[in-house]
Amino acid sequence: MVEKKKIDVMFFEAFKEEKALLKSICPEHIHPKFTSQTIQEKGIENVPSTLISIRTQSKIPDEWVNDLEGILARSTGYDHVLNYIKRTGSLAQAGYLPSYCARAVGEQAILLVMSLLRNIKKQVNNFETFNRDGLTGQECQDKKALVVGVGNIGSEIVDIARGLRMKVAGFDINQKVPGLEYADLTSGLAWADIVVCALPLTDETDCMLGYEALKKVKTGAIFVNVGRGEVSPLKDLKRLLDEGVLGGAGLDVYDEEKSIAQHLRDPNKYKETENASIIKELKGRENVIFTPHNAFNTKEALNQKAEQAIESVSLFLMEKRFLYPVPQE
Amino acid sequence: MVEKKKIDVMFFEAFKEEKALLKSICPEHIHPKFTSQTIQEKGIENVPSTLISIRTQSKIPDEWVNDLEGILARSTGYDHVLNYIKRTGSLAQAGYLPSYCARAVGEQAILLVMSLLRNIKKQVNNFETFNRDGLTGQECQDKKALVVGVGNIGSEIVDIARGLRMKVAGFDINQKVPGLEYADLTSGLAWADIVVCALPLTDETDCMLGYEALKKVKTGAIFVNVGRGEVSPLKDLKRLLDEGVLGGAGLDVYDEEKSIAQHLRDPNKYKETENASIIKELKGRENVIFTPHNAFNTKEALNQKAEQAIESVSLFLMEKRFLYPVPQE
Repeated sequence: MVEKKKIDVMFFEAFKEEKALLKSICPEHIHPKFTSQTIQEKGIENVPSTLISIRTQSKIPDEWVNDLEGILARSTGYDHVLNYIKRTGSLAQAGYLPSYCARAVGEQAILLVMSLLRNIKKQVNNFETFNRDGLTGQECQDKKALVVGVGNIGSEIVDIARGLRMKVAGFDINQKVPGLEYADLTSGLAWADIVVCALPLTDETDCMLGYEALKKVKTGAIFVNVGRGEVSPLKDLKRLLDEGVLGGAGLDVYDEEKSIAQHLRDPNKYKETENASIIKELKGRENVIFTPHNAFNTKEALNQKAEQAIESVSLFLMEKRFLYPVPQE
Repeated sequence: MVEKKKIDVMFFEAFKEEKALLKSICPEHIHPKFTSQTIQEKGIENVPSTLISIRTQSKIPDEWVNDLEGILARSTGYDHVLNYIKRTGSLAQAGYLPSYCARAVGEQAILLVMSLLRNIKKQVNNFETFNRDGLTGQECQDKKALVVGVGNIGSEIVDIARGLRMKVAGFDINQKVPGLEYADLTSGLAWADIVVCALPLTDETDCMLGYEALKKVKTGAIFVNVGRGEVSPLKDLKRLLDEGVLGGAGLDVYDEEKSIAQHLRDPNKYKETENASIIKELKGRENVIFTPHNAFNTKEALNQKAEQAIESVSLFLMEKRFLYPVPQE
């Protein structure tokens, strides 16, 4: 009989490339297990190991509360883990990976901005008939960009936008970037040609860039969200696009992202939610670009992420604490 | 009887939007006349004014040689005007608009680079199933970019690439950008992760970045062309992509562009050339982005073009010289 090997850590939502990287740098004495699925998709009932690692889509089952010792979120956001701990009273340690992908996300945010300013979807579509009607775009240079949320990622967006000779202002509770002009949200939104959201989800940021706030932008402004979808709900963005308030939207994150992702991946199993319907209606528009929560996903960031994840796991297995603990109030 | 107003300048080939822009900024003391037609389409026999302005499609009649004092080409190319002057021995001054769209083209070049580095086509395609497999991209930061052709447009590409914290080198006969490291073509290509072509078409640049030259790049390098298609023929690029030498290609210009455009616009009337077949085979690939010679097309560039045209006309009417005279050997 083959002895069943003890699993030290179960990695959920670890896709092919990430799995390969994690495996390649995992020390031999640690026994990991990997799945590309969420906890729900995997459909397991019992805790697979006292330490688990998820990204953002798994819902940790309440029933695991007494068996979990450590939860490592392989993401820069940690609201989902914090909520679980608060709700269940779990005594598990929680860790996250705060800054591995800041430049990657920043670059993708600016790529979405440039793509929208230059109507790149329409340019590519019009190539089919080599037709240049209605293709006049706008340049980045001298455009006014408001970065909402100037933490690790927002700071990179500021740096890149400045590099492109944009005029940049920031909105954040903590005004810590040297030389950056900070604005209050209302006047910042009224000033901006481009609004880029890099906010995490907290009680304060939930719906912060909803309909009422964003309708104050200049007509035709561009909105990009690489933070958390809940900050700027899809139904509000749809209304702003339909009313012509926003000239374009580029999203990498979505409110109720989990149910949207589940439905898009397996429409037979998961029903179409209201947000999934909005997604389906908007995604074909030439002034809308949707990417699948992928802004973090560069070779450079994944290398850094895998290193930080394995370091976090190693430390936890030795000392029952994480390299980057989730701050708990 | 209404007195017939003297015409100071006749603008040919001025379509609706350009005409509106030109009119809106033309000083009151200047009396322009506009037509969207070419000189031939308009069918006028006598010189309408001693100063005329054309784009690229009008043929200036030989019979006008003694009556024309000034010819303003509203284009960055001026061969057509120079040929007229040489052929007829005209003593008219000739002007053109050399740099109105340099930033627009530069920004589009970098947008193509970033789009390819980040697999944006695949990101958008994979959104359909919210699937992130194979979506890992690369960051701009610290990438090595070779700008081939560092004139007005190439200089802007250098500026933007530096703004994104790329390492930048240039190749050009004239090494005039301060602080830029210039390389010879062979070693520059071997060094680069990214090659951006902004060369005009001359006897020297024709096929300069063909198969033999470009196969020296690092495996997986990105190639973008916003200069002239003839510098890097499609059949060579296809071979380099098929062989995996190039990791991606973004093109706004094409060799035999006119026949490609005609076929794509009206496939019943114009037959599919060899290059049009290559285009059709490549355009669906996720590591290829084609835009319809549209990099110049921004609001800012069109405004600048109109301003430069009106400034050129004003100066000519006062001093009988152009702001940007066509260089005459």
